[in-house]
Amino acid sequence: MRLKEAGLRIDWAANVDMSVLIVGSTALDSIKTPAGSHPRLLGGSASHAAVAASFFAPVQLVGVVGEDFPKACLQLYRKHKINLEGLQIVPGKTFHWSAEYEVNMNNRRTLATELGVFETFTPRLPASYQKSRFVLLANIAPALQNHVLDQMRRPRFVVADTMDLWLNIALPELLRLLRRVDGLVLNDSEARQLTKEDNLWRAARQIHRLGPRHVIIKKGEHGAMLSSGGRLFVSPAFPLAKVVDPTGAGDSFAGGMMGYLSAATGSIDANLRRAMIYGSVVASFCCEGYGLESTTRLTRRAIEKRVRELEEIARF
Amino acid sequence: MRLKEAGLRIDWAANVDMSVLIVGSTALDSIKTPAGSHPRLLGGSASHAAVAASFFAPVQLVGVVGEDFPKACLQLYRKHKINLEGLQIVPGKTFHWSAEYEVNMNNRRTLATELGVFETFTPRLPASYQKSRFVLLANIAPALQNHVLDQMRRPRFVVADTMDLWLNIALPELLRLLRRVDGLVLNDSEARQLTKEDNLWRAARQIHRLGPRHVIIKKGEHGAMLSSGGRLFVSPAFPLAKVVDPTGAGDSFAGGMMGYLSAATGSIDANLRRAMIYGSVVASFCCEGYGLESTTRLTRRAIEKRVRELEEIARF
Repeated sequence: MRLKEAGLRIDWAANVDMSVLIVGSTALDSIKTPAGSHPRLLGGSASHAAVAASFFAPVQLVGVVGEDFPKACLQLYRKHKINLEGLQIVPGKTFHWSAEYEVNMNNRRTLATELGVFETFTPRLPASYQKSRFVLLANIAPALQNHVLDQMRRPRFVVADTMDLWLNIALPELLRLLRRVDGLVLNDSEARQLTKEDNLWRAARQIHRLGPRHVIIKKGEHGAMLSSGGRLFVSPAFPLAKVVDPTGAGDSFAGGMMGYLSAATGSIDANLRRAMIYGSVVASFCCEGYGLESTTRLTRRAIEKRVRELEEIARF
Repeated sequence: MRLKEAGLRIDWAANVDMSVLIVGSTALDSIKTPAGSHPRLLGGSASHAAVAASFFAPVQLVGVVGEDFPKACLQLYRKHKINLEGLQIVPGKTFHWSAEYEVNMNNRRTLATELGVFETFTPRLPASYQKSRFVLLANIAPALQNHVLDQMRRPRFVVADTMDLWLNIALPELLRLLRRVDGLVLNDSEARQLTKEDNLWRAARQIHRLGPRHVIIKKGEHGAMLSSGGRLFVSPAFPLAKVVDPTGAGDSFAGGMMGYLSAATGSIDANLRRAMIYGSVVASFCCEGYGLESTTRLTRRAIEKRVRELEEIARF
């Protein structure tokens, strides 16, 4: 099994079914940490998820950037063979987010959120995207996630990510979305906020009732958990001795997971656990550099090596 | 492997080497939760650890109680075939601890700590205890833990547990202890406090330098981690939909782990991971009742069943 996966080669042209459509935010991030300032890095949920997924499958990106979007960022997408037909470049400024991390990297303070061209964004799917079978609705306003789904033919597997902001300001739209997706990815505090339930396993049970058959709760350094078909899975996080910048780790997790799933043969149910492990591993690399710095240097071989290490770390 | 373990039968008389010596607090706990009050339950680190260990191996208890110690509590120890030769019953009051949990069971407030006979306790090891090969120094003042070690012949494997109180008021004595033990069990916040290091893997590395070859950091509902011989292990917690009373869960973890280890054949290194899994499972049962209520109803068969469930939950 492992050898087969390690040896898996992606033939981009021959198998369009394998591609994963990713919509989300495409942004410039300015990250401050006690170690220094890193202005205008390529960021956004879709960017992190798309790069993470690109190690496993062809990616179709849906997003919007302004005319100020650096060419180097487009080059970075292209380096990962990300299909940019669905990336709108429009007059105005690219979404800009800036945040500051405290020493321990667990506490983050948002300094500014300048929506720019995202304020009037309506995702439009190119015809070539509409038949995608795997869809990741990365973190973005649930109205936009719904709008993307409206344009899809018959996706095989749709997963949504979200954040506390949408629970606060767009809950009805988010609940409408939940009835239409196969899986929901969210972090532990969001799961608690959505369900008013402190126990995460009970929270997952409640989320199933809102629609998603697969509920994945991210717990940062403590890994992730999956509730699916009455069964539970506890996914370990890859242990890191140093976290440089955790921005985008959750998006990398979701992107890596969906990329792996869309390229894997067999049923979703049979592959989802390993897909989460691959997602965790890509997320761990993401944390080791600012923005996409570490993730973009990755190779499939480095991912496979860390997956084997994680297998050894979790073995008992 | 698994079948062999499930079929393992303990022959108490034939193999004295298998017994585990446990010293720690022997107390009466009064626990308040939003669901109700439970006064004067059998508690203390040694009680929880001893009952947990008793499902795997014969236990030799070292502790002290007052003349007010209920007969029912002695019966409870005896039901678990715990050797009470090292339990001193002296004039005065039994150590009494009372605490209140908040709704989510994560926050605990100590209401009272009445040391009673513990104030003047000096552990004395019966001759029959001094050759024990497995020693668990459950949470108690490090001076007493050291004093127990002073009386041992040549234990094969010594593990100490501790708590924030001793880091605050008895650090030099604790550091002296750390140079004498094979393993240290402590929780995440204690590991951070001891090392002034936020990252737990780096904290573990620092603790190795203080003495223990095996460092086990407990993370409550997030499981536990082991750093040992340059290798890491991430141990999942058994997922519980309801936590009734987490008091003693950490002690049950350490006791179950040491009981399993002392009864297992083969090297410590080869058995420690599974020992932690068994400890986690006993700890999960502990959380499902007040005090020792749930743990004392346990059977080895129920433990084995939950270990298999945890294997399934962690499989990928």
